Amino acid sequence: KLHTARSRNDQTNADTRLFLRDQVVQFVENTGKLVQELLIQAKVHSGTVMPGFTHHQHAMVTTYGHVLTAFATMLLRDTTRFTHWYALHNYSPLGGSVAYGTTFPIDRAFTATLLGFDGPEVNSLDEITNRWDAEADLGFAVAILMNHLSLIAETLILMATPEFGMVTLADQYSTGSSIMPQKKNPDPLEAIKGKTAYTAGILGGLLNMGKSNFIGFNRDSQWTKYLIMDLVDECLPVPVVMKGVLETLMVNKTVMASWCDKGFIGATSLMEHIIQAYSIPMRNAKVLVEKAVKYSVGKGVVTMGGLNKALAEEGISLPISETDVISWQEPHTIIAHTISFGGPGKHSMNTSLKKLNKKLSVYKSWLQKKQHEKEAAEALLKEYV
Amino acid sequence: KLHTARSRNDQTNADTRLFLRDQVVQFVENTGKLVQELLIQAKVHSGTVMPGFTHHQHAMVTTYGHVLTAFATMLLRDTTRFTHWYALHNYSPLGGSVAYGTTFPIDRAFTATLLGFDGPEVNSLDEITNRWDAEADLGFAVAILMNHLSLIAETLILMATPEFGMVTLADQYSTGSSIMPQKKNPDPLEAIKGKTAYTAGILGGLLNMGKSNFIGFNRDSQWTKYLIMDLVDECLPVPVVMKGVLETLMVNKTVMASWCDKGFIGATSLMEHIIQAYSIPMRNAKVLVEKAVKYSVGKGVVTMGGLNKALAEEGISLPISETDVISWQEPHTIIAHTISFGGPGKHSMNTSLKKLNKKLSVYKSWLQKKQHEKEAAEALLKEYV
Amino acid sequence: KLHTARSRNDQTNADTRLFLRDQVVQFVENTGKLVQELLIQAKVHSGTVMPGFTHHQHAMVTTYGHVLTAFATMLLRDTTRFTHWYALHNYSPLGGSVAYGTTFPIDRAFTATLLGFDGPEVNSLDEITNRWDAEADLGFAVAILMNHLSLIAETLILMATPEFGMVTLADQYSTGSSIMPQKKNPDPLEAIKGKTAYTAGILGGLLNMGKSNFIGFNRDSQWTKYLIMDLVDECLPVPVVMKGVLETLMVNKTVMASWCDKGFIGATSLMEHIIQAYSIPMRNAKVLVEKAVKYSVGKGVVTMGGLNKALAEEGISLPISETDVISWQEPHTIIAHTISFGGPGKHSMNTSLKKLNKKLSVYKSWLQKKQHEKEAAEALLKEYV
Amino acid sequence: KLHTARSRNDQTNADTRLFLRDQVVQFVENTGKLVQELLIQAKVHSGTVMPGFTHHQHAMVTTYGHVLTAFATMLLRDTTRFTHWYALHNYSPLGGSVAYGTTFPIDRAFTATLLGFDGPEVNSLDEITNRWDAEADLGFAVAILMNHLSLIAETLILMATPEFGMVTLADQYSTGSSIMPQKKNPDPLEAIKGKTAYTAGILGGLLNMGKSNFIGFNRDSQWTKYLIMDLVDECLPVPVVMKGVLETLMVNKTVMASWCDKGFIGATSLMEHIIQAYSIPMRNAKVLVEKAVKYSVGKGVVTMGGLNKALAEEGISLPISETDVISWQEPHTIIAHTISFGGPGKHSMNTSLKKLNKKLSVYKSWLQKKQHEKEAAEALLKEYV
Repeated sequence: KLHTARSRNDQTNADTRLFLRDQVVQFVENTGKLVQELLIQAKVHSGTVMPGFTHHQHAMVTTYGHVLTAFATMLLRDTTRFTHWYALHNYSPLGGSVAYGTTFPIDRAFTATLLGFDGPEVNSLDEITNRWDAEADLGFAVAILMNHLSLIAETLILMATPEFGMVTLADQYSTGSSIMPQKKNPDPLEAIKGKTAYTAGILGGLLNMGKSNFIGFNRDSQWTKYLIMDLVDECLPVPVVMKGVLETLMVNKTVMASWCDKGFIGATSLMEHIIQAYSIPMRNAKVLVEKAVKYSVGKGVVTMGGLNKALAEEGISLPISETDVISWQEPHTIIAHTISFGGPGKHSMNTSLKKLNKKLSVYKSWLQKKQHEKEAAEALLKEYV
Repeated sequence: KLHTARSRNDQTNADTRLFLRDQVVQFVENTGKLVQELLIQAKVHSGTVMPGFTHHQHAMVTTYGHVLTAFATMLLRDTTRFTHWYALHNYSPLGGSVAYGTTFPIDRAFTATLLGFDGPEVNSLDEITNRWDAEADLGFAVAILMNHLSLIAETLILMATPEFGMVTLADQYSTGSSIMPQKKNPDPLEAIKGKTAYTAGILGGLLNMGKSNFIGFNRDSQWTKYLIMDLVDECLPVPVVMKGVLETLMVNKTVMASWCDKGFIGATSLMEHIIQAYSIPMRNAKVLVEKAVKYSVGKGVVTMGGLNKALAEEGISLPISETDVISWQEPHTIIAHTISFGGPGKHSMNTSLKKLNKKLSVYKSWLQKKQHEKEAAEALLKEYV
Repeated sequence: KLHTARSRNDQTNADTRLFLRDQVVQFVENTGKLVQELLIQAKVHSGTVMPGFTHHQHAMVTTYGHVLTAFATMLLRDTTRFTHWYALHNYSPLGGSVAYGTTFPIDRAFTATLLGFDGPEVNSLDEITNRWDAEADLGFAVAILMNHLSLIAETLILMATPEFGMVTLADQYSTGSSIMPQKKNPDPLEAIKGKTAYTAGILGGLLNMGKSNFIGFNRDSQWTKYLIMDLVDECLPVPVVMKGVLETLMVNKTVMASWCDKGFIGATSLMEHIIQAYSIPMRNAKVLVEKAVKYSVGKGVVTMGGLNKALAEEGISLPISETDVISWQEPHTIIAHTISFGGPGKHSMNTSLKKLNKKLSVYKSWLQKKQHEKEAAEALLKEYV
Repeated sequence: KLHTARSRNDQTNADTRLFLRDQVVQFVENTGKLVQELLIQAKVHSGTVMPGFTHHQHAMVTTYGHVLTAFATMLLRDTTRFTHWYALHNYSPLGGSVAYGTTFPIDRAFTATLLGFDGPEVNSLDEITNRWDAEADLGFAVAILMNHLSLIAETLILMATPEFGMVTLADQYSTGSSIMPQKKNPDPLEAIKGKTAYTAGILGGLLNMGKSNFIGFNRDSQWTKYLIMDLVDECLPVPVVMKGVLETLMVNKTVMASWCDKGFIGATSLMEHIIQAYSIPMRNAKVLVEKAVKYSVGKGVVTMGGLNKALAEEGISLPISETDVISWQEPHTIIAHTISFGGPGKHSMNTSLKKLNKKLSVYKSWLQKKQHEKEAAEALLKEYV
């Protein structure tokens, strides 16, 4: 009676769901460990000043810790997407038969419990027809995760160029060349970018396969298995690799800091100070500082002389001291004054890191809960067998 | 002081988030209404027998109501994805400034509350860099929804061919030809398929834009706005159109039923009966019925004569009556005996529909809650202004 | 001195190009054989009438041969795309070194000749940076080919349903079920559809990998190899499988013909006759035939009585006989009168098939030429070694 | 009789083909102009030394002219793809009617000539069913072109960072910020990257729409029009913009050159010299120079002292002078000695540029020919009307 009420599709479907579920848990675990490393380093580097970029150009002063916190924040959002997968798809397709049920008195709720599912799927035809749903949902969660990992990769690749020189990759996470001794190629980071393009392609394939199908099982969907299994193979280890890259990375603080005295990167903060300290309207303060910048050209920072010339020209008189002018463009002072939530300022960073660590602990608990549920189901299954 | 602590990016980012949030709510509402229609009709047609398909071939008997329930089930899963969007992205990016905070004493938690957000985003650099995240999440939720709608479209298109003849589209949901009077072209359903392909392409574009970026704002991301706004325009009305198609569809029950007496579609149920009633192992029952089918060729159903010949050949004697043989291949009887959960049987359908209606009411409550939250925030904002 | 002026990238790049070139030739060969089969059968079935579809609905009468000719035409266009690949990419990347040339006195033109290339690539940096170009071009050519093969697959799948019943797949190209004896599942055709979705995804991945790269080799491009090699494995045999499906397919002419007397499918031809024979403006002829259709409802074809009623109502008198009315709606007569080039009429079909056979012979010559070039290069290489 | 033998689809199809054909010509023209600018500047900068990159790291010395030649080479390949489009698709779909021909005595060859087509399409059903083919072919040609333009964009964006400082964008091709005076944001280049992602997405959409269709016109294909028209709008002007960026770009030769004395970038050339001048096997030469590099650390180039120490350690004696050691690492000398075809050496560059200019002139002739063909057809049409 072993074959009773079972079709091949039914079993493959249930097997795939169990496989996907395990991968989802693994992605949460691997991503979580990377986030933990990022949060630790973010704290360490909360005072490591560096230029903050927009358009690949220097915008304002920030800290390397703030950048690492940005990485952690996006990855925690990715972790949520995996738990959403669980909420949507931890249901048992077993017992759907070929899609139209059976006259055998099977107990789908019980087999669902034995396999650690939250219950049976509600409609046998939906579960067979849309086998690709759970795969596409995983594919998408991985695609977004990979996009973020590719962003971290690209950022580190640029920061590791001779020109930027802000970080140096450890030997074990770079490759050399047959002759060029200066070469430290960021191969693992480039591989991540390659895999990211790959992942988006695979997701495209999964979605195409689910388009405009006629109701009921069609063999097309067999190919989604190959896609999703390759995807998992390629991407599951990536957060682990990235963690290794970051753990062993040499951060060149002096280089980072050296770029914070150039290019008038502190002009915005100086302007904000003038607006707040002397109740100058933004419109006027902007013109003032722009002129001051022009009159300080070649210095990298606004000088007292440059500002005075601008003030004279605008017919404004301010009781601002040279110490103030210098101080409000000094990177560490700027960071100290940056008080808005979400920014690189000390207080904001403390609050943010606390929030993010709390979120991380939520995922750790989730992982433990899923582990317990799995073990409980396995124990029950063993007992029943 | 109106310009204080505000950058263009900051404001565009907040505006976009508010726009996306509204669309997400609209998608839940439109999809929910379609599900409601499907659940109503599923009940009406829970006894409307038709062939259940696999591989575009007749597999076993099912009901049109079972098929409609499958549609409802997949769309309810899609609705969940939209609410997951809300959980991930209903946070305020306002006050992130250019990405690196500000020295102005702004209160991001307060502006978040005034705009009905669940709080400010945790990192100002993440929220600026990953503006495409919320768009890609919406794009994906729509892509899966559209895939399911394209499946419903394709299924109805085939069922509406002269050859299938199982449904007839209403005049207002089909187009004619300049001369061919017999033409009732399922244009709205084809448009849905076209838009589905379009949507997957747009999602691909959104994902590509988020790949391998350097940290900080880059202008590339402006193009994600065009993509997501076009996407919403094309797809938001689709569930409404599909609801109209289904409300006005003529269901040709006689044609559906006529295919249930042909092609030995009831052979599986007869075999299941023989296994259960006479404790015949599945292996033997299978051989028996296969032979019976062979000996009943040209009849469409297994005949008593055919079965007897098979029984004799196999040396098996069964106290089965001709009434039984006929009855276990009769479509309504098969449905009545199909007791497994998720299948087309009466009891199972009742339970399923109850579960699905309950899920639907959860989304209705969610919609009301979101509406209240929005109104409360608007009232607070008005009061504060 | 074996390592002289050679980098790993250089060699991998040349190897890949040789591999791709061979696949391109194979695709031309496999597709050509399928086209040949289609052209043979198109001739055989140039009188096999069947409904011509638009919108999955019956539009006008056509022949199965006309449909097969459409298949052959699209596949010949696909063959051209592969030869375009050759024109673009049969150049030798060997000797580009790491991308910036070498001080060794290498002779790239000579090694190009030895490998059967049409010359060396013109720029060493382009050839290393854009390794994915040749892969993407192949990927696209395959993607379009697969789209057309998926169209043929879908068309045959529908025509093989019990409802259409126009063709029957041979046993060796269909699969059965464990119990359902009526099942002839078109698995190979469904597999083609699945592989088509897969191919478009792979192409997406290849294109993503080539986006926004910094000049020079980057490791990302290693992943394009996996993609293109999988793609070739999956798709190269597909035209061969399709040829097998078509060679063994049973064409149910009676069923095809039976649909040509229903649904007023000949009304358009009757209208065209009235316009031409009696110089009635199209506008009026259209109204006339529409009314005639209405008055012939239940008959499937316009009757003399129906037409007379319409004529009377419109106040038009035509010397048209009942024989004419019947004849101009008779499928074989319609085909005989369809004289426009590209259509299913006898003369047009003859001309089309001649043109297509000529095109096919061009590809056969091309294949021979490429084979000779390859052998000549190999002989030269052997001689030189 | 104006409506004779014409269906809406027929006309839309012909209109679209004419539209696409015009765009293809425009793309060839715009891309050609950009190539011309690149070839001019490549000559100008054939002696402008700069680091050649692999993996975003300095590999060997090259010239800015060599890099520009790489850009020109890839774009000329792209131009070929557009002419391939012409060869495949400059055929008239007019007269295919709804897909199954007509009984009217139309002359498709003549209307094809009047519209400047190379003849009528061979099969009326193929041309209607596969309307998306010509669009996908254009979409792909644009996608590859955009990928290359995005590579140029990314390369310039990095070279324009404060850290690289190798080029400076003109004011008219960059945007500023409300306050930060140092900001020269490369917005137009970022827009190109965004549009590239967009294009790949659109192509994905076009391919999805062409998958698994049933033979004959289906309304889905209407959406391909929106996609391809948007694509043309977004991408046709891009080569023109890039030409403007390059024409106005400030090339910082001193900065480029300054990186050529650092990081042992000339070590490979020195090694090649030792192999050739003294018949030292590559294996030994490699070890020798690697050690020499180690003993010259902090100097940026291999010193005589460093090399001597290495020679002594390896027990090798070479009659190499200090002048030689310095000279073979001097950037201009390296370029002078780089003789392989396709590389940055003077002779190779001359040959390459000659070849590329010749190719470019082929496209100019092609454009003139197409212009003449179009005018001739229009004259004939006018005459006939």
